[in-house]
Amino acid sequence: MNENSYYSQENHGPYELHDIGDFQLEEGGTIRGCQLAYSTFGKLNKAKDNAIVVPTWYSGTSKIMEQVYVGTEHALNPEKYFIITINQIGNGLSSSPHNTPFPNGRTNFPHVRIGDDVRAQQKFINKKFGIKELALVVGGSMGAQQTYEWAVRFPDMVKRAAPIAGTAKNTEHDFLFTKTLIDAITSDPAWKDGWYSSNFEVHQGLRRHAEIWATMGWSTEFYKQECWKDLGFSSVQDFLTTFMFGYFGAMDPNDLLSMAWKWQRGDVSRHTGGDLEAALGKIKAKMFVMPIDEDMFFPPKDCEAEQKLVPDSEFRIIKSIHGHLGLFGTDANYIGQVDNHLDELLAMPV
Amino acid sequence: MNENSYYSQENHGPYELHDIGDFQLEEGGTIRGCQLAYSTFGKLNKAKDNAIVVPTWYSGTSKIMEQVYVGTEHALNPEKYFIITINQIGNGLSSSPHNTPFPNGRTNFPHVRIGDDVRAQQKFINKKFGIKELALVVGGSMGAQQTYEWAVRFPDMVKRAAPIAGTAKNTEHDFLFTKTLIDAITSDPAWKDGWYSSNFEVHQGLRRHAEIWATMGWSTEFYKQECWKDLGFSSVQDFLTTFMFGYFGAMDPNDLLSMAWKWQRGDVSRHTGGDLEAALGKIKAKMFVMPIDEDMFFPPKDCEAEQKLVPDSEFRIIKSIHGHLGLFGTDANYIGQVDNHLDELLAMPV
Repeated sequence: MNENSYYSQENHGPYELHDIGDFQLEEGGTIRGCQLAYSTFGKLNKAKDNAIVVPTWYSGTSKIMEQVYVGTEHALNPEKYFIITINQIGNGLSSSPHNTPFPNGRTNFPHVRIGDDVRAQQKFINKKFGIKELALVVGGSMGAQQTYEWAVRFPDMVKRAAPIAGTAKNTEHDFLFTKTLIDAITSDPAWKDGWYSSNFEVHQGLRRHAEIWATMGWSTEFYKQECWKDLGFSSVQDFLTTFMFGYFGAMDPNDLLSMAWKWQRGDVSRHTGGDLEAALGKIKAKMFVMPIDEDMFFPPKDCEAEQKLVPDSEFRIIKSIHGHLGLFGTDANYIGQVDNHLDELLAMPV
Repeated sequence: MNENSYYSQENHGPYELHDIGDFQLEEGGTIRGCQLAYSTFGKLNKAKDNAIVVPTWYSGTSKIMEQVYVGTEHALNPEKYFIITINQIGNGLSSSPHNTPFPNGRTNFPHVRIGDDVRAQQKFINKKFGIKELALVVGGSMGAQQTYEWAVRFPDMVKRAAPIAGTAKNTEHDFLFTKTLIDAITSDPAWKDGWYSSNFEVHQGLRRHAEIWATMGWSTEFYKQECWKDLGFSSVQDFLTTFMFGYFGAMDPNDLLSMAWKWQRGDVSRHTGGDLEAALGKIKAKMFVMPIDEDMFFPPKDCEAEQKLVPDSEFRIIKSIHGHLGLFGTDANYIGQVDNHLDELLAMPV
């Protein structure tokens, strides 16, 4: 265990914990008393057909999904839908390296795959709420990976799906980008093979990790147009320290590494012996594939190639010079586009 | 001094050395007995108006410029032109941290700016060859930075100019990308503040540096289409080790850091108190601005914004899914496009 106040109810709550028991993982490990952290908004109707699952992205928690995507003014409207934001395993709120006791925490925390998350989430919502049908699964980045996994693994359950800024099968380029993030942390001698006392000891590695994110996460145009000014920062340096390092520097390095390993290996074609076309062909959901046009590592081209393999799907591009991290809702023009597409998708009969 | 056989005549020659004497730098340092390494191809005509200067990019030497860009089948045809490829200061062939004796080598090597390179090059070609007019200056990446500097600083001397995949004023995004490269090296404890015994001791930092290059230097599409196969590699891993680490891992870390510092600060508007429009307005050369469409850090948008400020200029985009490192000529479709544009530019009366 590494104490870390970042992952508190105060910062990320209110959230609940659901214990799914001992959970066997695809790679062979077991998480004992696996906890899923989640929040719900709205009410499940009697037919139990108005539920929406929202998984989380790398480093993200249910809180930012709530803040940016959920509300009566959004497509994810709690007056109409029962919205369940579920924290991915390893993100610091659900079972993760930093909150798992000796000897299974830190770098002994077992490898988790996107498929494990989705199995755990399905088990949870079925047991806790008796949900057998989802009106929508929607998530960004690693949340999109989970969205694809949901749609392929549970084709009869998922009626609609919207992967935003993410892919069904992670690309070689994206694997490599993620490797540079991993290496930024693990190359810090203060990381001590994962046996640091506090995340702040690993500040140099976390800063490098934040700065690689700053390069790839936004876009060249974001910096050219000085969008960091609109976000309230006085200089790029101020933005890098206060926003980027302020964000990642507070997190647990081993938690980030656990998610990064999972991200690198997201791949729905594991269900079909490596045949991506066959895997995506299994999807029965109506799907809107929604990349962000300036995304530097989940580029529209990669997303469109996959969309063409999904039977009942449309390609809906989001325009944002904030690039991949437009997901954070920092671009005032972003969420309206997402809402419009999701409104349309949710209105479609299934 | 750090012995390093990578920078030998065997690998990069034949090249000559020209001593420009003690050379005072813009930042206040002095390189004593500053050496410029260069190669020439073809003959200077009697009017001395057929000379072409080709500066080098980050990590590059005159050798790759010769191999990819110079030849009777290319626009840079030694049967018509007198072509001088000049190694930038810090690149390992010209005066550099690794070949400068104690106490001025290693991290004591003074900060060099793009403007210093261009002043040194001008001094050299004027003294050595009596050249007062250049038919063309053409270079890629940091070579493009030098090309812009040539055109702004010596507007009457430079008749034509072609910056490829580079900018006149480095962007904030690019500065940050370069910082991640710098940090990859300096975070390696084996770098020892620059006082390592051999570049191979810094292999971890150099590998991380190579892998960040692998992410940003090529393009997402390069990996998607598995272009590394066409280059003769069996896997991405093989490509990363044999090509990317094989390339950068052989170099001197302090030399790379010297160039990176310079790259970050390339800016012709230093001549006009920060007014980029005024600086680019001074250019008298006919200029073709030639970005590569899939370049992830010198994107066409940034290059086009500058081109519009250059009086007698055209925007000529090069298509290559090899992205920025298409400069290496690895894409069979690349050099033909460059040659066509340069042929056209060279045929224009001035």
